[in-house]
Amino acid sequence: MRIAIVEGDGIGKEVMPEAVKILDYFCEKHNFQIEKVPVEVGFGKWEKTGEAITDADVATLKSCDAVLFGAITTVNDPSYKSVVLRIRKELDLFANVRPIRPILGIEKILTPPASCFVRSNVDMVIVRENTEGLYSGIEEIGEERSTTLRVITKKASERISKFASALASSRKNKLTVVHKSNVMKSDKLFLDTCKKTALLGFVETNDMLVDAFSYDMLMRPEKYDVIVTTNLFGDILSDTGTVMLGSIGLAPSANIGEKYALFEPVHGSAPDIAGKNIANPIAMILSLKMMLEWMKMNREAAVLEKSISVAVSEKKVTPDLGGNLSTQDVGKFILEQV
Amino acid sequence: MRIAIVEGDGIGKEVMPEAVKILDYFCEKHNFQIEKVPVEVGFGKWEKTGEAITDADVATLKSCDAVLFGAITTVNDPSYKSVVLRIRKELDLFANVRPIRPILGIEKILTPPASCFVRSNVDMVIVRENTEGLYSGIEEIGEERSTTLRVITKKASERISKFASALASSRKNKLTVVHKSNVMKSDKLFLDTCKKTALLGFVETNDMLVDAFSYDMLMRPEKYDVIVTTNLFGDILSDTGTVMLGSIGLAPSANIGEKYALFEPVHGSAPDIAGKNIANPIAMILSLKMMLEWMKMNREAAVLEKSISVAVSEKKVTPDLGGNLSTQDVGKFILEQV
Ligand SMILES: CC(C)[C@H](C(=O)O)[C@@H](O)C(=O)O
Ligand SMILES: CC(C)[C@H](C(=O)O)[C@@H](O)C(=O)O
Repeated sequence: MRIAIVEGDGIGKEVMPEAVKILDYFCEKHNFQIEKVPVEVGFGKWEKTGEAITDADVATLKSCDAVLFGAITTVNDPSYKSVVLRIRKELDLFANVRPIRPILGIEKILTPPASCFVRSNVDMVIVRENTEGLYSGIEEIGEERSTTLRVITKKASERISKFASALASSRKNKLTVVHKSNVMKSDKLFLDTCKKTALLGFVETNDMLVDAFSYDMLMRPEKYDVIVTTNLFGDILSDTGTVMLGSIGLAPSANIGEKYALFEPVHGSAPDIAGKNIANPIAMILSLKMMLEWMKMNREAAVLEKSISVAVSEKKVTPDLGGNLSTQDVGKFILEQV
Repeated sequence: MRIAIVEGDGIGKEVMPEAVKILDYFCEKHNFQIEKVPVEVGFGKWEKTGEAITDADVATLKSCDAVLFGAITTVNDPSYKSVVLRIRKELDLFANVRPIRPILGIEKILTPPASCFVRSNVDMVIVRENTEGLYSGIEEIGEERSTTLRVITKKASERISKFASALASSRKNKLTVVHKSNVMKSDKLFLDTCKKTALLGFVETNDMLVDAFSYDMLMRPEKYDVIVTTNLFGDILSDTGTVMLGSIGLAPSANIGEKYALFEPVHGSAPDIAGKNIANPIAMILSLKMMLEWMKMNREAAVLEKSISVAVSEKKVTPDLGGNLSTQDVGKFILEQV
């Protein structure tokens, strides 16, 4: 198995090594052969070479089975194109999976307001369609008027709802389709397709308008199991939902395709705290945990999750969570628990 | 002055009379002549006549200066068109104003989780562009592919940011432009236009990506003053933000145009609790308060706000807030305080 290791920029470079050490440990222990392929892409590369990601980089990524991804800085320069969007496209990573399940014990170490938002009994997964919608790239730019085409296809809606239905049936068998079909006809296609697909899979399905859902997910999160939604709604809702984890710095994600998969923390490269060795590595390590699950190393994933929970309960954490450990010390503590 | 009174459907019919009684009282006391013009539109009318709103209704609305609006049921029938969207368009109500400021004392009567979300020191206003974006109505419907065109114009962006800047300068002089220009070029036009306009008005301006903002608004709401954003982002964010009020049943809104204005609660017609006399009238009464401010009856608005706060502090509220009063009793109590 070949795993591409993309540290990226900023704190990506600091949190990735902690995840890699844990991966190395598991592989060594179980005598599992993994080839790690470092791939340098991102803002740093763009500054040096004028290209944030090259065709050769894409080819390297495609020669791997999965990607462990840190974080990349995006700049507001018209010539700078988002690296993660290009990778999602090239590797056809159609499902963006973002679990909202707080780490056991986290509520005890946080202070308000973060502690107020944490809901220990929440266990939902937001499944975001990752290839179309408002990310179509079909745009017309003008000085007086600019447009973006929101594209919804039956094919992509079918594919994502099949994925979400299968996930639901391995969990509480409940699927909520989130849309805005009272205003956009494109979402009527999404909604109808999702409902039909879920029906075939015998999944209990309901649907909600995105505005109402965003409120209800915070007020009554226990009601929900798997959420399936379009690209940009998923982007917004999954960031919003991380308040229930206590911090966006604790949110992992998986980008899944038919052939490849990519695992990345939801947070960005945080240039403001980069280089200080205080970045919280937990979202990165939880992303590794999702990769282990994807590799069917479920026992190792469970051990890792438990170890993270011990670190949290004993407040062996970085300053953002009220601890006084460095990035490396947190990584080391978790590895020791493992 | 002519005020159209639109009760609408469901609980709209129950909460509106409570607001109207208070309006009547103020007018009588100050010998202020208001002509109330009842207008029947909505789902009920559609069932009876096949039309939810007629051209004649629109003409009546246009003969008024402002609209006090209850709530309307929307059904998933292709022949049913949203009444409120048509009115916003016909009356050119370009600014949707949604304040997030909790009622004094509300946190004391709520139970978790609602009480956890209330932040008594929050005072922000979401200003939502109300005429374009994904509400353009420019759609192509197909079985395999449906699209919605997201339209951003310089003109509408200028108008809404002027409005938002003026509002900010009457408050803490801080404007946050919320967008997704890292993915959509249409939002680059929105962002650039807003920034330029705010600069002219000497308003302190920053900008945030919609996903990051949705998280930060919950985690650090004290930072924000006036938010300006595009149509659908405003729709989602303003519903999300009502968790900080303790309930969506406490959120008022104003739709402002150059010539007309419309005031409505953010909540819907709630068919499930309609007819039981338990609907919470506070969002409707707070919408009346916004109308009084718009009519420059600032003293009356302040008195009304204080009276609502007394009702809340003494738990003279409906069951959704843990009280045991009926819709009418809450209305009566508030009127007595006034
Ligand atoms: C960086 C950005 C293009 C990206 C997105 O919008 O998908 C990010 O917000 C995410 O959620 O992974
Ligand atoms: C009913 C619906 C069309 C409307 C909207 O999307 O604007 C509502 O959600 C609102 O926020 O007023």
